[in-house]
Amino acid sequence: MIKNDLLIRTLRKEQTERTPVWFMRQAGRYLADYRALREKHSFFERVRNPELAAAISVMPVKQLGVDAAILFSDILVVAQALGVDVEILEGKGPIIAEPIRNQKQIVVLHPEETEEVLAYAIPTTRAVKDSLENEVPLIGFCGSPWTLLCYMVEGKGSRDFSKAKQFCYQHPDLAGQLLDKITESSIRYLQMQITAGVDVLQIFDSWGGLLSPSDYKKLSLPYLGKIVKAVESFVPVILFAKGCWYALEALKETGASAVGLDWTIQPAFARMAAGEMVLQGNLDPVVLLGPANYVENETISMLRAFGKGNHIANLGHGVLPETPFENAKVFVETVKNFRF
Amino acid sequence: MIKNDLLIRTLRKEQTERTPVWFMRQAGRYLADYRALREKHSFFERVRNPELAAAISVMPVKQLGVDAAILFSDILVVAQALGVDVEILEGKGPIIAEPIRNQKQIVVLHPEETEEVLAYAIPTTRAVKDSLENEVPLIGFCGSPWTLLCYMVEGKGSRDFSKAKQFCYQHPDLAGQLLDKITESSIRYLQMQITAGVDVLQIFDSWGGLLSPSDYKKLSLPYLGKIVKAVESFVPVILFAKGCWYALEALKETGASAVGLDWTIQPAFARMAAGEMVLQGNLDPVVLLGPANYVENETISMLRAFGKGNHIANLGHGVLPETPFENAKVFVETVKNFRF
Repeated sequence: MIKNDLLIRTLRKEQTERTPVWFMRQAGRYLADYRALREKHSFFERVRNPELAAAISVMPVKQLGVDAAILFSDILVVAQALGVDVEILEGKGPIIAEPIRNQKQIVVLHPEETEEVLAYAIPTTRAVKDSLENEVPLIGFCGSPWTLLCYMVEGKGSRDFSKAKQFCYQHPDLAGQLLDKITESSIRYLQMQITAGVDVLQIFDSWGGLLSPSDYKKLSLPYLGKIVKAVESFVPVILFAKGCWYALEALKETGASAVGLDWTIQPAFARMAAGEMVLQGNLDPVVLLGPANYVENETISMLRAFGKGNHIANLGHGVLPETPFENAKVFVETVKNFRF
Repeated sequence: MIKNDLLIRTLRKEQTERTPVWFMRQAGRYLADYRALREKHSFFERVRNPELAAAISVMPVKQLGVDAAILFSDILVVAQALGVDVEILEGKGPIIAEPIRNQKQIVVLHPEETEEVLAYAIPTTRAVKDSLENEVPLIGFCGSPWTLLCYMVEGKGSRDFSKAKQFCYQHPDLAGQLLDKITESSIRYLQMQITAGVDVLQIFDSWGGLLSPSDYKKLSLPYLGKIVKAVESFVPVILFAKGCWYALEALKETGASAVGLDWTIQPAFARMAAGEMVLQGNLDPVVLLGPANYVENETISMLRAFGKGNHIANLGHGVLPETPFENAKVFVETVKNFRF
């Protein structure tokens, strides 16, 4: 009953008339209307208020004509679900005043209160879904347990998340307990999103690529696997693990429907590692800061490199706030007009 | 005539009694004696003063027993050679007050003055060499032209160097001119280091991994190739290109003697891509923040994964300032005591 179901059909590996397109962080700062709302409402007001969340999530569909909406929220709401105090500073990222560093802090985390703390997710998701009027599918999301741990232990964004990694090396048992709790809360949160009507889920493992392949197998993959297993019978799941070129085969084996690629992974390499898996990506977001004809040429090169079918056009990471709206439009239009 | 020439013999692919070991940024903040000198002398004083540069470069050899010294300096001296004003703020990295953004700024850059501007490199390198008393080889270095462009255009460190990449997408011709000038200056600087007695050279492409494979081929590889070609008949060259897992084969084809690996690259993958090339690396630097027995176990795992021969033990990136000296020692001792 979704009018434009290109994304869903691609995720089911059905033949489609063209490649679907959306992009990560598409409901964000490069949109003038979003920036205007940002002046008037705090970040979590925008996330929790159904009208605001709906207005923001629908913007890129209306203004750019992308083939999917993504729920406006942040991966750190799962830390809040567990009882951690998180602030999002505009343009600076998340701040956790009391980073998790010991067992006492882990014992009190309460995944079983996820439904209560994140109760707003049901009405906001429904409001987004209603506003979309079945034009395109709605993507729900959460972060990977490893990426959540990074923020919860480090306390803020970081280039190498060395404190988070050090914590795992020093206290592997505590890291396991923390990852288990994040996993449980994430599953509960995704189940709420499913209940409220999302059509697809994406899991963002933004900091997976900071781990060595052997650490990735210990600290990220098993938890991603548990989440995928818990939800994949309800909706298709896309895994985006930035920098995890070495884990493509393992990501495929989680049972996810698609794997998202960053811009360092050549489609041919991904095909070799993940076979006929549906692949999503992977234009370098900085390309959208170049001239319009450059954006067009690079987008076409990307489409050709992935080839026909089993591909969802996207960027290799979130769209940059300084992206000119016109270039975002060129990217979308180029994909929509291209035929093999 | 170098007493411990394990590194040189490994780079020549000769059989050695054990794997040589050194690490990137080994003359740095994790050493108490270095921190003491830092209180009294500015960064460029330490780089330019022969006694200070010698004292600092020799510290890790004396205190840790590593198998090589590396010249104490910074990759940004090549920007200074070209006429760009660079400040290094302690703990914050480089600041370039007037980033390069137009042709006028590129035209005035003067690679032909490298020998004059960096004249101190001859006496400082000789002083380091003298202080080493032929105990171990001395590694000289420079940054890759791409990595230098990143700083010179962006003006400071950055997570994605989006301004630098945008500049290259908008003005590929200017980017080419700038990369040519950096390349010429780098070659002149390395030739000075060779004249002054360095035994090995390493080129750091710290930001190569921010590029897509096709951009890497355009913006980094050709310039690395030119530099290697200009110096490889004099001393062996090690290329360290962080995040460039997709370019290992191409890096090998530059004619370099060894390729440095970051910690996301499994030795088996590197062997597949680069064959019997000498490989350097690649313990995650954060491992050295873990417990001592963890450092030991991970170091042994790394040695086993690389196997006997054609390997130089190192970290996968620079040693972190917060690394406990004792753990750095465990890493070195573990490599030195290990036998296949």
